[in-house]
Amino acid sequence: METILNLLPLTDEERAAFLAAAPNEEHLFLPETTLLFHDGTATPEDVARSTVIIGNPPSSWVGKSTRLKWLQTWSAGVDPYLTPGSLPKGAILTSAAGTYGQSVSEHMLACLFSLMKRLPAYQDNQRAHIWRDEGKVKTLVDSTVLLLGAGDLGRSFAGLVKALGAHTVGLNRHPDRPVEHIDTLCHIDRLEEWLPKADVVASTLPQTPETIHILNARRLALMKPGAILLNAGRGSGVDTKALQESLRSGHLWGAALDVTETEPLPADDPLWDCPRLLLTPHIGGYTHLDVTVRRLAAIVLDNLKRYMAGEPLRNQML
Amino acid sequence: METILNLLPLTDEERAAFLAAAPNEEHLFLPETTLLFHDGTATPEDVARSTVIIGNPPSSWVGKSTRLKWLQTWSAGVDPYLTPGSLPKGAILTSAAGTYGQSVSEHMLACLFSLMKRLPAYQDNQRAHIWRDEGKVKTLVDSTVLLLGAGDLGRSFAGLVKALGAHTVGLNRHPDRPVEHIDTLCHIDRLEEWLPKADVVASTLPQTPETIHILNARRLALMKPGAILLNAGRGSGVDTKALQESLRSGHLWGAALDVTETEPLPADDPLWDCPRLLLTPHIGGYTHLDVTVRRLAAIVLDNLKRYMAGEPLRNQML
Repeated sequence: METILNLLPLTDEERAAFLAAAPNEEHLFLPETTLLFHDGTATPEDVARSTVIIGNPPSSWVGKSTRLKWLQTWSAGVDPYLTPGSLPKGAILTSAAGTYGQSVSEHMLACLFSLMKRLPAYQDNQRAHIWRDEGKVKTLVDSTVLLLGAGDLGRSFAGLVKALGAHTVGLNRHPDRPVEHIDTLCHIDRLEEWLPKADVVASTLPQTPETIHILNARRLALMKPGAILLNAGRGSGVDTKALQESLRSGHLWGAALDVTETEPLPADDPLWDCPRLLLTPHIGGYTHLDVTVRRLAAIVLDNLKRYMAGEPLRNQML
Repeated sequence: METILNLLPLTDEERAAFLAAAPNEEHLFLPETTLLFHDGTATPEDVARSTVIIGNPPSSWVGKSTRLKWLQTWSAGVDPYLTPGSLPKGAILTSAAGTYGQSVSEHMLACLFSLMKRLPAYQDNQRAHIWRDEGKVKTLVDSTVLLLGAGDLGRSFAGLVKALGAHTVGLNRHPDRPVEHIDTLCHIDRLEEWLPKADVVASTLPQTPETIHILNARRLALMKPGAILLNAGRGSGVDTKALQESLRSGHLWGAALDVTETEPLPADDPLWDCPRLLLTPHIGGYTHLDVTVRRLAAIVLDNLKRYMAGEPLRNQML
């Protein structure tokens, strides 16, 4: 018999569907109110005795498990579980990719429009009671948006900016397979060719050995003067020191980071005070939209049905 | 012979087109660098001797003119010229309605997404070096956006929010004529019926006797709890004191005002520090997008051709 530890905050209806999908197994429903950040509902003992875990338990707990066969995260990124020893040998790892597209892409759009229309400067003026015109603004109409990564997040963001007048160019490792909302799809190897052509560069790349500092000083310098950079993938994708230099020099119009190289960002990090920078604390992909949790539950339930039927799982990472 | 005072900052090509449209008239090209705010290029004497003026000269100057036959503003709102004595008797007044739709609607969208995603709170946190999750956010998907005014600005904004998943309801005085991007069009008399149903209320109303404080305390209270208010029409459309109470009480999620009852807003006005409020200094409809000036020139040129041909002018207000 499986012991399924389920940390999702489910509705009654969703819980019934999970029970029905695996009627003869043991279900431990220990919903966490704050997804991704363990809030102490489940104990190390609950984790140790489970064969299936739905949620993001501390990797130090699951690494010690002798029973775990399948970990289904509720995050889209699974990098904490990819380091050797984080999971018991042979355990399957699946992500919740597909859950966060709407939430992250809308957050990116909010940051982009805020930068394009100079809202951060107007907010600073408001706090200081200053009525002052801050000059020229930008539009997406007839612009080129370059997407680094064309998965769920990149595709969703492409849909939004395309609807608002942009031409979308996506870079990934499989440009032969068309992606919805992306007008031009190229191999990520062509990054340096595309950087000078883009008005907006938006990264939703996961952390892999290839993506660490993929946007380094040289590539940031290749960006068009007055372009905007967005990063909602992983903080390691951008060389933050080089980005600060680029922003301070005025080469870029602005940048928005929802992810940083160290999270939380230390209070004394100079990045906080970098001009032209909009910083949010990795909240774009969280569950602040109710619809996100419902979509997550549906994706996980589908995988549980596949697991019980012995079928291949979706989003398998290990 | 007409004397045409033209204050627009035209390209060489546009200037040639204006000359060609009225080849036998006198043209005074005195481009102002800052539209709407007279920067001293034209003198009261230039205004006094012109029969046609393209621009927004001080109303105290044009009121004294004995020669003026037609004033074409470059603003969409013409309220400064509607008070008795502002224009010589019999003068035609045309506005530049149609010019600012893209610019204003994109500014409104930036403000709306900024509020929905709590960017003002994140910016305050950034300034204080605080990494803190600010909780639930909002989406336009499956929301209802109520547009007060369905002219160029309202229609443009409807197009943007509809593309991002909203249902659009427009209110105006002629609901029998369909308006692009507006799903449901009703008479403005039905305002109180629609206010409780809208997730976003967006006013682009001009100032008229009927629109002053059209959003008063009672109507703001009719808005759905957690709704968002945007005003990019005229500041007089919203009872600012009542709005502040509504925002301070937490009834509304937030509000963005690009226009205020007094402009510039005095430095000691309590509105600056109202919570949940995003304030910008009437810059949405300005010429901060290059495309705006080109569109303006095209609209005005069309009217000049009509004037020379003795045809009815577009956007005639008087």
